[in-house]
Amino acid sequence: MADLNLLRELSLEGDTRIVMLVLDGLGGLPREPGGPTELEFARTPNLDRLAAESMLGLSIPIGNGLTPGSGPGHMALFGYDPVRFLIGRGVLEALGIGFALTPADLAARGNFCTVDAEMRITDRRAGRIPTATCAELVEKLRAIRLEGVEIFVEPVQDYRFALIFRGPGLSARLNETDPQKTGVPPLPVAAQAEEARRAAEIANRWIAAAREILKAERPANMVTLRGWATEPGLPRFDEVYKLKAQALAVYPMYKGLAMLVGMNVLQGLRRLEDQLEALRANWTSYDFFFIHYKYTDSRGEDGNFEAKAAEIEKVDAVIPQILALKPDVLIVTGDHSTPAAWKAHSWHPVPTLIHAPGRSRRNAVTGFGETECLKGVLGQFPAVDLMPMALAFAGRMAKFGA
Amino acid sequence: MADLNLLRELSLEGDTRIVMLVLDGLGGLPREPGGPTELEFARTPNLDRLAAESMLGLSIPIGNGLTPGSGPGHMALFGYDPVRFLIGRGVLEALGIGFALTPADLAARGNFCTVDAEMRITDRRAGRIPTATCAELVEKLRAIRLEGVEIFVEPVQDYRFALIFRGPGLSARLNETDPQKTGVPPLPVAAQAEEARRAAEIANRWIAAAREILKAERPANMVTLRGWATEPGLPRFDEVYKLKAQALAVYPMYKGLAMLVGMNVLQGLRRLEDQLEALRANWTSYDFFFIHYKYTDSRGEDGNFEAKAAEIEKVDAVIPQILALKPDVLIVTGDHSTPAAWKAHSWHPVPTLIHAPGRSRRNAVTGFGETECLKGVLGQFPAVDLMPMALAFAGRMAKFGA
Repeated sequence: MADLNLLRELSLEGDTRIVMLVLDGLGGLPREPGGPTELEFARTPNLDRLAAESMLGLSIPIGNGLTPGSGPGHMALFGYDPVRFLIGRGVLEALGIGFALTPADLAARGNFCTVDAEMRITDRRAGRIPTATCAELVEKLRAIRLEGVEIFVEPVQDYRFALIFRGPGLSARLNETDPQKTGVPPLPVAAQAEEARRAAEIANRWIAAAREILKAERPANMVTLRGWATEPGLPRFDEVYKLKAQALAVYPMYKGLAMLVGMNVLQGLRRLEDQLEALRANWTSYDFFFIHYKYTDSRGEDGNFEAKAAEIEKVDAVIPQILALKPDVLIVTGDHSTPAAWKAHSWHPVPTLIHAPGRSRRNAVTGFGETECLKGVLGQFPAVDLMPMALAFAGRMAKFGA
Repeated sequence: MADLNLLRELSLEGDTRIVMLVLDGLGGLPREPGGPTELEFARTPNLDRLAAESMLGLSIPIGNGLTPGSGPGHMALFGYDPVRFLIGRGVLEALGIGFALTPADLAARGNFCTVDAEMRITDRRAGRIPTATCAELVEKLRAIRLEGVEIFVEPVQDYRFALIFRGPGLSARLNETDPQKTGVPPLPVAAQAEEARRAAEIANRWIAAAREILKAERPANMVTLRGWATEPGLPRFDEVYKLKAQALAVYPMYKGLAMLVGMNVLQGLRRLEDQLEALRANWTSYDFFFIHYKYTDSRGEDGNFEAKAAEIEKVDAVIPQILALKPDVLIVTGDHSTPAAWKAHSWHPVPTLIHAPGRSRRNAVTGFGETECLKGVLGQFPAVDLMPMALAFAGRMAKFGA
């Protein structure tokens, strides 16, 4: 695995273009022993044809046996060690609703909960109140003002909201207030390091004010706060890779992750066609494009094998449009596997294809799928190696040492 | 990747012999999509026969996407992490001309350049003066004497020369004086750490004296100095691996690299036949032989696909002579790929063969080439693992742990 400092030293400016097409949760499992996976079941004539003239392999997002969340899965694709560059849940929650974080922000994930007269939690999710109720309560909580910090409260979904304190010197070294069980009161926020004393004080004052506002409500009459995190200050694509990168994503979370690594994020994209249209429109203005397709993961999480395969087919249909732009390097991969059989993310390696005309060795493969990828020239490799390979195949890496 | 301390602890004395045959820049690319590589195009009946009864795989010199120079490529083959044991350009330049470095040496690569009356560089390479002129100027620079150091100046090629200061306490933590552009004067040498103050002073005095000597010359009337480096003090083959190693190489650079790891370097070899003759003559005196063949890389750098294949065939022809000596382990590999299609080193994994009779699992392969190696029992593996495997297959590695 290449060190970022080494990549920073070796990466070169260039007039070549790289497209990274990420089918979220692409990897899968057979429905019955010996059967095809979702990708193998899907009719993908374009990807199959491309596979025969590309390099195939399987990328390992974090490590064998380790199932990545969306944050680590994408950090690995972006070339950043996902264990070292861990993104806190509070930050992911804020990114997921499109909140533009700044380096001065301390973010937490909030849950509305129910407490009894003795402040003991009776329901950690307040009966899973609907999102509309969540939004109404959040509106009330926005009245809270505290000296020295700007405060943002944003509804997320059901009983979940995002809380952001903005101000100087706010450390995330705080404990979570959710005791993870009922019958006991929420925990107070305590600083886990001297540097976090001020943040703890602010958090406790905010919680007290929130309780004041919520005490007459039913069932959501209290809050818990989890996943304290600050903006992670990640290395940027332009300074590490010398790439001018653009993200073409629909979902806020992935736009947010792209923003964290310094990509330009195009807003307002709703469908795959919008993403393709934007790719064409911006082709000469950027040299790296991250295209994110969410629904393969969504249908995998639903446990719907055929629907996931159908989503893969939709992406297959636009491959010729990408190839028409003649990218120097086209990567087709996923951030992790989401087998429909599991209805969840998994650690299984992810089918990956690198198309780099004139720079490839041949595979003896017949199409794009988990089993064929095993025969590919890329072998099984750490997902963080994708970026150095993309740069190398795009002619944008200097020789190491004389 | 095994740690050198672990290898030092586990390696055993033995009465077995290992041959590492390195075809420089062995790995290649197809001329046209789907076609054979240079190695696959070459007629190699001996290597193909050997492949069927050997273990095949592809070695990754540094990491996916990282293109090695000759130094890092060989460090990896010798089992030393090429990122950690980086050999400076000054040292490589000295090795390349066969200069015997000592631990007291500080080496730099020198360039003759042209400056105007205001000392601004007008040509960083002094019109690429011929090597003969370079040698004449170097002869003049040899007149420079400085107290406390011995000084060596050696012509290399065209406008390039090697400069070596020999004396106690000379640190390489110095900046390069080449500003990398014209219209500005060369930079003075500044110490980048306290320990380098004396070296900086000596370097600046030498440069001033050189300018005095050169000022009436045309076009080479000044010098720049780059790639400051000291002898890297590498672990030695005998103490890490308990191997008595001999290098059979023609080119000075590779003899120099072998010397750095403590191999005995046989001088005076000019042709492959000389190398084979020496192998036979020294067979009972050493237990590790590094045979280096340069011309596969040279023809790759030339962009001559067929000529590179022809060089591979020349090596193929001598394989029976090596096998006749019955080495316990024969490794056939390269230090990196040099596809003729690229006319340069590349990061593509290197076809590798380990022949260890009686100690191998079988491959289902039909010959020695990039595509067949993908099916080999060794898989794709870091090149630094070759030495521990060589020792293990030679029965020279103890069990780790009880």
